[in-house]
Amino acid sequence: MPINASRTEAPARIRLGMIGGGQDAFIGAVHRIAARLDDQFILCAGALSSTPERSRASGAALGLDPTRVYDDFATMAAAECARPDGIEAVAIVTPNHMHVAPALAFLQLGIHVICDKPLAASMSEARQLAAAAESSDAVFVLTHNYTGLPMIRQARAMVKSGDLGTIRLVQVEYVQDWLTEPIERDGQKQAAWRTDPARSGAGGATGDIGTHAFNLAAFVSGLRAESLAADLQSFVPGRRVDDNAHVLLRYASGARGTIWCSQVAPGNENALRLRIYGDKGGLEWEQEDPNLLWFTPFGQPKRLITRAGAGAGAEAARVSRTPPGHPEGYLEGFANIYIEAARAIRAHQRGELLSAAVEYPTINDGLAGLAFVEACITSSNHNSTWVPL
Amino acid sequence: MPINASRTEAPARIRLGMIGGGQDAFIGAVHRIAARLDDQFILCAGALSSTPERSRASGAALGLDPTRVYDDFATMAAAECARPDGIEAVAIVTPNHMHVAPALAFLQLGIHVICDKPLAASMSEARQLAAAAESSDAVFVLTHNYTGLPMIRQARAMVKSGDLGTIRLVQVEYVQDWLTEPIERDGQKQAAWRTDPARSGAGGATGDIGTHAFNLAAFVSGLRAESLAADLQSFVPGRRVDDNAHVLLRYASGARGTIWCSQVAPGNENALRLRIYGDKGGLEWEQEDPNLLWFTPFGQPKRLITRAGAGAGAEAARVSRTPPGHPEGYLEGFANIYIEAARAIRAHQRGELLSAAVEYPTINDGLAGLAFVEACITSSNHNSTWVPL
Amino acid sequence: MPINASRTEAPARIRLGMIGGGQDAFIGAVHRIAARLDDQFILCAGALSSTPERSRASGAALGLDPTRVYDDFATMAAAECARPDGIEAVAIVTPNHMHVAPALAFLQLGIHVICDKPLAASMSEARQLAAAAESSDAVFVLTHNYTGLPMIRQARAMVKSGDLGTIRLVQVEYVQDWLTEPIERDGQKQAAWRTDPARSGAGGATGDIGTHAFNLAAFVSGLRAESLAADLQSFVPGRRVDDNAHVLLRYASGARGTIWCSQVAPGNENALRLRIYGDKGGLEWEQEDPNLLWFTPFGQPKRLITRAGAGAGAEAARVSRTPPGHPEGYLEGFANIYIEAARAIRAHQRGELLSAAVEYPTINDGLAGLAFVEACITSSNHNSTWVPL
Amino acid sequence: MPINASRTEAPARIRLGMIGGGQDAFIGAVHRIAARLDDQFILCAGALSSTPERSRASGAALGLDPTRVYDDFATMAAAECARPDGIEAVAIVTPNHMHVAPALAFLQLGIHVICDKPLAASMSEARQLAAAAESSDAVFVLTHNYTGLPMIRQARAMVKSGDLGTIRLVQVEYVQDWLTEPIERDGQKQAAWRTDPARSGAGGATGDIGTHAFNLAAFVSGLRAESLAADLQSFVPGRRVDDNAHVLLRYASGARGTIWCSQVAPGNENALRLRIYGDKGGLEWEQEDPNLLWFTPFGQPKRLITRAGAGAGAEAARVSRTPPGHPEGYLEGFANIYIEAARAIRAHQRGELLSAAVEYPTINDGLAGLAFVEACITSSNHNSTWVPL
Repeated sequence: MPINASRTEAPARIRLGMIGGGQDAFIGAVHRIAARLDDQFILCAGALSSTPERSRASGAALGLDPTRVYDDFATMAAAECARPDGIEAVAIVTPNHMHVAPALAFLQLGIHVICDKPLAASMSEARQLAAAAESSDAVFVLTHNYTGLPMIRQARAMVKSGDLGTIRLVQVEYVQDWLTEPIERDGQKQAAWRTDPARSGAGGATGDIGTHAFNLAAFVSGLRAESLAADLQSFVPGRRVDDNAHVLLRYASGARGTIWCSQVAPGNENALRLRIYGDKGGLEWEQEDPNLLWFTPFGQPKRLITRAGAGAGAEAARVSRTPPGHPEGYLEGFANIYIEAARAIRAHQRGELLSAAVEYPTINDGLAGLAFVEACITSSNHNSTWVPL
Repeated sequence: MPINASRTEAPARIRLGMIGGGQDAFIGAVHRIAARLDDQFILCAGALSSTPERSRASGAALGLDPTRVYDDFATMAAAECARPDGIEAVAIVTPNHMHVAPALAFLQLGIHVICDKPLAASMSEARQLAAAAESSDAVFVLTHNYTGLPMIRQARAMVKSGDLGTIRLVQVEYVQDWLTEPIERDGQKQAAWRTDPARSGAGGATGDIGTHAFNLAAFVSGLRAESLAADLQSFVPGRRVDDNAHVLLRYASGARGTIWCSQVAPGNENALRLRIYGDKGGLEWEQEDPNLLWFTPFGQPKRLITRAGAGAGAEAARVSRTPPGHPEGYLEGFANIYIEAARAIRAHQRGELLSAAVEYPTINDGLAGLAFVEACITSSNHNSTWVPL
Repeated sequence: MPINASRTEAPARIRLGMIGGGQDAFIGAVHRIAARLDDQFILCAGALSSTPERSRASGAALGLDPTRVYDDFATMAAAECARPDGIEAVAIVTPNHMHVAPALAFLQLGIHVICDKPLAASMSEARQLAAAAESSDAVFVLTHNYTGLPMIRQARAMVKSGDLGTIRLVQVEYVQDWLTEPIERDGQKQAAWRTDPARSGAGGATGDIGTHAFNLAAFVSGLRAESLAADLQSFVPGRRVDDNAHVLLRYASGARGTIWCSQVAPGNENALRLRIYGDKGGLEWEQEDPNLLWFTPFGQPKRLITRAGAGAGAEAARVSRTPPGHPEGYLEGFANIYIEAARAIRAHQRGELLSAAVEYPTINDGLAGLAFVEACITSSNHNSTWVPL
Repeated sequence: MPINASRTEAPARIRLGMIGGGQDAFIGAVHRIAARLDDQFILCAGALSSTPERSRASGAALGLDPTRVYDDFATMAAAECARPDGIEAVAIVTPNHMHVAPALAFLQLGIHVICDKPLAASMSEARQLAAAAESSDAVFVLTHNYTGLPMIRQARAMVKSGDLGTIRLVQVEYVQDWLTEPIERDGQKQAAWRTDPARSGAGGATGDIGTHAFNLAAFVSGLRAESLAADLQSFVPGRRVDDNAHVLLRYASGARGTIWCSQVAPGNENALRLRIYGDKGGLEWEQEDPNLLWFTPFGQPKRLITRAGAGAGAEAARVSRTPPGHPEGYLEGFANIYIEAARAIRAHQRGELLSAAVEYPTINDGLAGLAFVEACITSSNHNSTWVPL
């Protein structure tokens, strides 16, 4: 059971910078591990915090060259662009409202951007960024990390190949419990910015996790959602954004779906769950046990397809490192987005066309995510009327 | 680990008749086992089929006295009422459109009625029956069987005692796959009547299984649903009733919920699933593994409460027969409704007040179910607008 | 999804008596439900306790004719034999040391015997009973109830048909925790007799649950165990019988196996688990989720075969009542042994040969169980040396 | 939910070399990811294959400086030792028979050794290495990687703190299916060396995976195994080492246990499973779902403790990167051994005493593993007699 060695090592590391991700950040550290895991990137520079002191302290803790730890992204963009060994790509891991400004700055300089989701704090700034991304030659990758997981790739391939027949239903849940109580009042940093409309955007759960759910539904089903009807709640008294959302979806193909996202359901840690059904079969998957995919061809026993095991195909193998039964997890899935980013950046650097096999979430996924959040809010504000997407 | 002997045996069997339930029927045989399991009823008479020949053949197969096998319910009601040893109760297990007429007949004669769900094929006839039930002295039991399961009783008790705090979310799914293909066209008897509006009523999945889901939500949460918004589909071409429904619910207390019921989701056999969350904890349960109940007090590890095991209380024990780890299932849950019916009938016969511990679904649950179906159809016909319940 | 109606009803009930099973008994109540579930037996008489007063009180609670409630089995045997409507079969549900004497008495009178397991408290009395059973014309059924479960029948059929290839490994566990503490000292009635060598026999866990595990291994694999090596423990201070056993098995075919039985493993309620592997595939099953059977054809994805679902064959259907997803449990499995007993008794009464499809545990299974217990004790007393079976 | 940032980044990387791990190797690539994941090591040199050409090709694929890719370990040891920037530590990832010679060479030069398990191909060479390790000042780490998993650390801490009371039973299984057929004959490289006594040592499954199981039992229980009795099989015709083993264990404390290891059980990928029971509670864990630990305090409901979730303590947090519900897997557990190695090496370099919190498998674990394999073979060759450890 040799692991997929051909993709886990490669000679030339891409020079990476980071915006945000200083001490106490969650997702910045995840990006760094993801970038490092397969030895395709090397972190060289950063503007790691909104306060210069913290940025420097964070840079020191990471062992960065102090001359390449910057007080702000604008200084960093200019300085790195001027260096012969300047960064080739930048990871943007700030709160949502601070994605667009640095992304614009780096795109304009032709530096590739790997940006955390959601794309922006509002649709209008998302559109501005999309325009910039289209006019820039640089690669833009949005880290909808769950699309990097092997069994999600497997599920997508099975849907595409017709194993489920015509898709009828796409059910996605993303359920957590960490905001069951008003911890944003107690200074919990993650809770504070994620429930602050000024920093997270108008969507709470819808933006933070609903966009993942919506993206996953689209990625696996290959279907276009046409409209939605939503009922949003802020169950926790005083909370300024939604912490629970019930969403009905209509797809252009005639398929239907639902999204339930919640941050107030005790007993759920990070329960992203996908179920998709067609007239010939069904697939079921849960993020907390990501190496398993349940497939039922209608009228036959349910089958358990495992990552790298019997029944898993080339699309799963392509983003898989270890033999069956040796579980890969969240970080490996995140790293797969970085692997795809590396492939795209290298193809760009060589002037080659990108292979069809390279798949990563793009600015369009980001726009769709913002459209989802806005439609949820609009619908909910209009008594759950159907709103086009 | 002695079993709950005090309730599994009792001297005097209640004389039971049956309307419907002849050969090829599903639910009639279930009712007979449920009535027999705890030795509280004895089947004495029946009008078992719409055709006299089949009724007689079915009666013979069941070993009934041929003089008490009748061609139709009206004849049976009159004849049994005239006998000194006539039936004390009747089980009505016909297709939905044939519940009300026999129920009215027996209620008028003071014979207790145990009726399969949904109560009727339409709201108007349901109201007629409700009026008759109120004016009759007889007991009326509707077999929403899942409310008889021990861990559902346990869940209800825990909600009531405040273990979950204030309820915020009530999520129920009832998902099957047996109607994925248009088997009603091939003469499958169960499919034929259940997808025929003339026999099942206007609701398909909503009536057949959605009413169970709606009833379960109310039973466990103790909350009153105030309005719903629904999107119904008939995915199978030519099908005349809904085979999938997405329903949003608003409860009077401010809680919210969803119901998803489907008969076209491959890989789901009889997947009734309840999840209920409050500001202090959550409960999760699945019908296919009915002896287990997952309880998470917020901020503590999830706990597995098992039927008759540590953590299960008196409400579960009351309807439980075997020690922990000796699974009880669908038939035992169904039998618990018959046990409750027997208790109610005996209390009635003795002129006693009914103990508060005796709980069974009533005509009001039946009315609520019909209201649910009608509201689903109304909402879906009006583009998922909110409809009061 | 009509249920298997042809077997759940039949006209002529077999008249049944019971020895043991009075108030506070566990297994007696189980036998009564099992006998009643499918309407094949009617309980008519009993000697329900070792004390006449308790026997009478228990008979009254069961609604038995007081003239047919006896003080002891010998009186009952004589009296019932003399009645024209005397019992046709007797269920023996006493503690182990009280199986043989009544069984001998009834067999001699040609009354069919349905006896709880283990067969006896010692090998010598087991042999005596076996001789009597062979010379008697009556049917003798031993209630190794787990062999009645549909998915166990399914597993056996798959092994027989070669789905696993040549069997290499048969791993069975039967693990409980109810004797973790010395509750026999506190007067817990079940614990008291089951840990008393005078009443249970020399084996504790080995006799009570190990015999089930050993029987299940033989039933499903179809293989003959040739020898065993065992290490037995009595972990609870003062306990007079084993409460844990580790057993290695060698089968005549060259296959190997293990049995682990324990009553002191906290967190295990009634965890009987079977895993069987051949050179072409593997099967896995757990009693606490008895409707599921996992099958892996080597080199293919694992498949979930469900009772009455796709992939389940005629052998499972034959002992199954409800559609897929409507779980059957412990009592239904037990009732299947009674169904088989009824078939055997009726064939006997009609003078017919028994159909090959009728399968129930016999006196030979009982002898094998006693041999298993004795070999475990002998091996453990000789430092786990291999002992022939 | 900030991740454990303090341990996932640190400035000064330890210079690492590698022996073995060239193209087509499995475990070498795993070691490289594990070393890289937390940015504590940088791979600088290697003798990556037994053939110089393959070593060079592998080095190029890894982007190593060609002058630091060596034809053999002896040349590498001498050359690296002479460089001012020579490696500080070496990872030995060759087949078992090639562990000792390079380990001796590097230890003699004071270069820290991180060695794959089992320690050696025979007890005699293991003892030779142990002597060298004792006389060397360098750190020696054996990669029994499963001891690095957070929930294994959690389990150990709970046992130590008395949550289970006095331990009675330690049950470990390590079950795979990849050697169900004689693939060693078809040139499958992993199978070829792992079933060749000259390269793997006399133990097959016992050495390859049984040593992991034995080590895990000791690590979590804290108990010393005193003797064992084993029955080993080579089920696949022509196989020269065991592919299945049933092992009984007696611990010095009076506890008992079993180990079942197999490579021929279809449907098992990498099923390492630990269950440990005391007089106050039980713990259950499975490697394929490594983020979960089931804990039953006797007499209370089973609890699910999750990595980084409620109920998980400091020992789990110390080796955990992501929030609850974001699964970590095999590679992260392996990386935790490298983290511990880095801590030990840095403490050594600073001349500091090692913190008690730093835990990694040592040469003594390696000796114990070899003793386990030898005892299994001896016992099995003597008809499963008990053999002291």
